Amino acid sequence: MADIGTVRPLWWEDDAICIVDQRLLPEHYRVRRLGDVESVREAIATLAVRGAPAIGIAGAFGVYLGMRSLEGDDWDRRLGEVAEFLASARPTAVNLSWAVNRVVEVGRRTRNTQALLDAALTIWEEDRRLCHRIGEFGAPLLEACTAVLTHCNAGALGTSEWGTALAPIYALQSRGKILHVYADETRPLWQGARLTAWELSQAGIPVTVIPDSAAAVVLRQGRVQAVVVGADRIASNGDTANKIGTYGLAVLARHHHIPFYVAAPFSTFDLSLSCGAEIPIEERSPEELVFAGGRRIVPEGAAVWNPAFDVTPAEYITAFITDRGVIPPPYPEQIAKRIRPEI
Amino acid sequence: MADIGTVRPLWWEDDAICIVDQRLLPEHYRVRRLGDVESVREAIATLAVRGAPAIGIAGAFGVYLGMRSLEGDDWDRRLGEVAEFLASARPTAVNLSWAVNRVVEVGRRTRNTQALLDAALTIWEEDRRLCHRIGEFGAPLLEACTAVLTHCNAGALGTSEWGTALAPIYALQSRGKILHVYADETRPLWQGARLTAWELSQAGIPVTVIPDSAAAVVLRQGRVQAVVVGADRIASNGDTANKIGTYGLAVLARHHHIPFYVAAPFSTFDLSLSCGAEIPIEERSPEELVFAGGRRIVPEGAAVWNPAFDVTPAEYITAFITDRGVIPPPYPEQIAKRIRPEI
Repeated sequence: MADIGTVRPLWWEDDAICIVDQRLLPEHYRVRRLGDVESVREAIATLAVRGAPAIGIAGAFGVYLGMRSLEGDDWDRRLGEVAEFLASARPTAVNLSWAVNRVVEVGRRTRNTQALLDAALTIWEEDRRLCHRIGEFGAPLLEACTAVLTHCNAGALGTSEWGTALAPIYALQSRGKILHVYADETRPLWQGARLTAWELSQAGIPVTVIPDSAAAVVLRQGRVQAVVVGADRIASNGDTANKIGTYGLAVLARHHHIPFYVAAPFSTFDLSLSCGAEIPIEERSPEELVFAGGRRIVPEGAAVWNPAFDVTPAEYITAFITDRGVIPPPYPEQIAKRIRPEI
Repeated sequence: MADIGTVRPLWWEDDAICIVDQRLLPEHYRVRRLGDVESVREAIATLAVRGAPAIGIAGAFGVYLGMRSLEGDDWDRRLGEVAEFLASARPTAVNLSWAVNRVVEVGRRTRNTQALLDAALTIWEEDRRLCHRIGEFGAPLLEACTAVLTHCNAGALGTSEWGTALAPIYALQSRGKILHVYADETRPLWQGARLTAWELSQAGIPVTVIPDSAAAVVLRQGRVQAVVVGADRIASNGDTANKIGTYGLAVLARHHHIPFYVAAPFSTFDLSLSCGAEIPIEERSPEELVFAGGRRIVPEGAAVWNPAFDVTPAEYITAFITDRGVIPPPYPEQIAKRIRPEI
């Protein structure tokens, strides 16, 4: 097992990417060394590495790995092939193609493998700084809490380190303040039970897993003093798409007068969307609900509705915690103010 | 498979109890014939038959099966042994010892095996009438709905037939009005997915299983016009203990201005309790959350909180649907009025 300490899902070591294979968690902690572009692509495609920032970073290193033994005239053609090969591993993941393209642009300009590696290291380092900024901005909001509730995994495992929703908790830990975290198990894929509980335990932060349906009682009994979640996409008015269950939590938090925070990089704001109704909601395979551990749970005659995300209207969100600072209401105005910040 | 029609979890046939083995649902529909007291006890102890009224009925028939071949002086001693043997199968199930004792009293008075069978048949028939009354009283409340949401299984499978929360839906079906039912999957034991979805499908009622955390969106989108749940115990002021997740649903229903009904036999009111704070809440084994289908979901370092029930304060309940009629607010008063009804 890893030593107690903040988890990193991937790192660069001896000219290879090392990743924690997330498919095996929490049963097995296994580090895989990815030394060529083929194994990087396979790890991304099979979800051994997951979380938008983390797969972007892996893809960036993958470009370097695909190019490092190449010299000469084939450079540009090969660079295009490597980029296409990597980006197609998860075609809808915006961060992956964004990160791959950023390294490819450096490659076209420099035709130099060391410059590719430097670009990938920069992307990794930027993500670390961004997560740490979210943590530092969020820490004061949670400082007076003894416990918080979170949903799904918006933690270190999906980024370079620290994550987004969990970043303020790690930031407080680095100052010697330990919060207790309640983690919704997060059906149907159990990211809360499998991933959030694992990374917090590894970091030495006490965590209690609950069924999603027990969150209301946790709030009613005052076991937590805040709710913190991540976000997949935020409209310009603050309406927020995140893992299914987030909206219900937000309503329950308001009902119990408990603050509800959304932590995300500012790049999660999709300023082309005026409100949440414009965010497309992915419906995932019924199989995720029909079977559990190989056993059939839902009978054949029954229908299944399995939306991956829901949209929480901005009015339920106490504040956003971003790398550009905490954004309080009123929302369209306060969000707009951060669009061209002086950092 | 059974023919389409309202499911019965047990019935009396050829001098034996026939039960649907609920441990195997929804993967396998298997009827087991229990022709002696030993197999009845084993079926109760292993949850092949479940639900308070259903195990009471099975226990009542079990007394007859344990006594039918006996004549002479051993009668009273044997009757006591059979009763103790059956009641100890699930010592905390109030309905089981209540039903067994009722048949035993008949036995002590009559010393006649046919009288034991008649008593068991009466208990079965009374439960059927009681569920049907709940259905008939509840039907007008749901008549204008196109769809309703339910949680856990408070259906035919836990009673003689029709159940409690699902009884109004079956009553409407018998009048030719078909509702669509959304069923929360109900973690951690999946009673909604496994049992509610199965019995409704069998009865020809369309059912859609959702993750518990999607209920908020179902309510927000107006996919249902009412929520109906059962109850495990109701205090004299109307505070209601039921499966974990019920309280959150009640808060969400109120927030979305959707009526929230609790359907239960009047015997579920525990008039010795003044309010919900006096209802003891059972916490179940962490294993139910830690493992799913044999796979470890929660890591070893993490804690688990797995309350079996929660308490919904009376103020969130639009009305109770009972065998003594619909009970609207104000609660302590309206409930008290039904204590000695003229039926």
